[in-house]
Amino acid sequence: MEFSEAEVIAELSKIFTRHDSRVLVGIGDDAAVVTSPLQKTVITTDMAVEGVHFRREWSTPDEIGQKITAANLADVYAMGATPEHLVVAISLTGHESMVWIKELARGIEMEARSCDVLVVGGDIVRGPVITISMTAIGQIDKPILRLGAKVGDRIVISNLPGWSAAGLFLLLHNINVSALSPARCVERALAQFRAPSVPYSDAIELRNAHSMCDVSDGLLIQAEQMATKTRFVLNSDLIRLHPDFADLTGLAAQVGADVWDWIAAGGEDHAFLATGVDLPGFEIGQVVPGTGVELQGVAKKPQGFHHFT
Amino acid sequence: MEFSEAEVIAELSKIFTRHDSRVLVGIGDDAAVVTSPLQKTVITTDMAVEGVHFRREWSTPDEIGQKITAANLADVYAMGATPEHLVVAISLTGHESMVWIKELARGIEMEARSCDVLVVGGDIVRGPVITISMTAIGQIDKPILRLGAKVGDRIVISNLPGWSAAGLFLLLHNINVSALSPARCVERALAQFRAPSVPYSDAIELRNAHSMCDVSDGLLIQAEQMATKTRFVLNSDLIRLHPDFADLTGLAAQVGADVWDWIAAGGEDHAFLATGVDLPGFEIGQVVPGTGVELQGVAKKPQGFHHFT
Repeated sequence: MEFSEAEVIAELSKIFTRHDSRVLVGIGDDAAVVTSPLQKTVITTDMAVEGVHFRREWSTPDEIGQKITAANLADVYAMGATPEHLVVAISLTGHESMVWIKELARGIEMEARSCDVLVVGGDIVRGPVITISMTAIGQIDKPILRLGAKVGDRIVISNLPGWSAAGLFLLLHNINVSALSPARCVERALAQFRAPSVPYSDAIELRNAHSMCDVSDGLLIQAEQMATKTRFVLNSDLIRLHPDFADLTGLAAQVGADVWDWIAAGGEDHAFLATGVDLPGFEIGQVVPGTGVELQGVAKKPQGFHHFT
Repeated sequence: MEFSEAEVIAELSKIFTRHDSRVLVGIGDDAAVVTSPLQKTVITTDMAVEGVHFRREWSTPDEIGQKITAANLADVYAMGATPEHLVVAISLTGHESMVWIKELARGIEMEARSCDVLVVGGDIVRGPVITISMTAIGQIDKPILRLGAKVGDRIVISNLPGWSAAGLFLLLHNINVSALSPARCVERALAQFRAPSVPYSDAIELRNAHSMCDVSDGLLIQAEQMATKTRFVLNSDLIRLHPDFADLTGLAAQVGADVWDWIAAGGEDHAFLATGVDLPGFEIGQVVPGTGVELQGVAKKPQGFHHFT
């Protein structure tokens, strides 16, 4: 494809312009927020394709279900909302066993249950590749937008991203993980890639943030999406102080990877990046006048793995 | 696959059982209906896969977009609900042109606009085949269930199904349509297959029905889904009186097809099948004690084309 996802979305946004007063937040944020006469409902959708977003040889079906559900629900929490309902559409090739399908469903159900979310419908079709599409619907009081940052805000992150990128790196490069130490770091990386544990409760604690985003497309990329009206200065010295930094750096060193590629550009790492005052979370920078993102103290531009490039 | 869609849904329903008082209608109907403290929201999702549900050589992108949207919105109306919002997830192969993608979006937008529905979000991913998944969310007062039929109800249909099945037949069998007459019937069949005109307003007029369903999986199959607590007797003599019957029969005769395969077993024909008293629509039968469906006056069991068999 000769154009980026952002270009496609920009084009489509020109077509889907009829956003009247019912739409508080439309295309372009983590989720849509719509009013109705008496309340606000949040809606978000995600699609995952076998071979692109998951591989059956790398993940069990319940891990696949859990991971896709987590990604969908994280978007709802990133809005400051509470997910309530989920619908799931899936295309199957016809070669899956019922056991596989049920395990996939159990993974979905397990993750949904952890957030008290109900799967209320779906669609099953035939297709040449397994594709899973989910839509989460929830309730919301005050949306926390990506573009709500104010000059002077502290920038905080709920947890250190990079573990899922590390796990993907190990799998992609067929690394003999038994030669790596400590084992708990290897296990954490692989587990975070296969079935991430999303810090949903941290997102709830960040509800007085001025802006918030789930950085699942990569920390820098998503910070850039938040920094079009203000400038985000991220301080690598602060990030280095995170309790997980040494573990992740140690793992990266053993496999010849740049830990900043994992932390700053890794995808599928769920962490809530927020700005505001008196926020919980780990401080990594500050919002200043200007636009764009600066990662101070890292010479080489971090490189990520992205589906759509 | 060694099992049917119904079997898969039955299995999944056992896993997704946490339907508390918030869920008025869960898995198994046209759409889910959920309460929230102050209102009822309707949610439904559909997925369509290239080569299975649409072919780029048969349909323009705007026809594809329109058709998939129509199918999704028809499910909302079939619940007695009013759709309000739509989210769309799509996987693209990377070989589509921006023009193609935009035309697809315009088709979606056109159909959504015809129902005053807003596209409020979506997801775009890479995949080996074009897959489009939609979720419609709407408002609802009193859900009209598939299983609400009462003994003594009249069975009505909003329009004669079979035109889309006829169009698919012409395309699947590479029929030289210029040899068929009248041309308006050929055009109607092809148009109804490519971009169906769904009688949404008829569904609104049927809101005092006891039960209702969009028969897009085939009239008999969907009537069977409605007839597990009562028996549906469909009278072919009544159906033969429909003003469209002669046209459709004439087309079938010219191509060696059985018109009852199209009317009673054709898929992707959008018509609202409802039961009740004093209903508008075309009467085709009656609800009696017992269970199951009987199509009186048609000797050969109608055969349909179904994706999942």
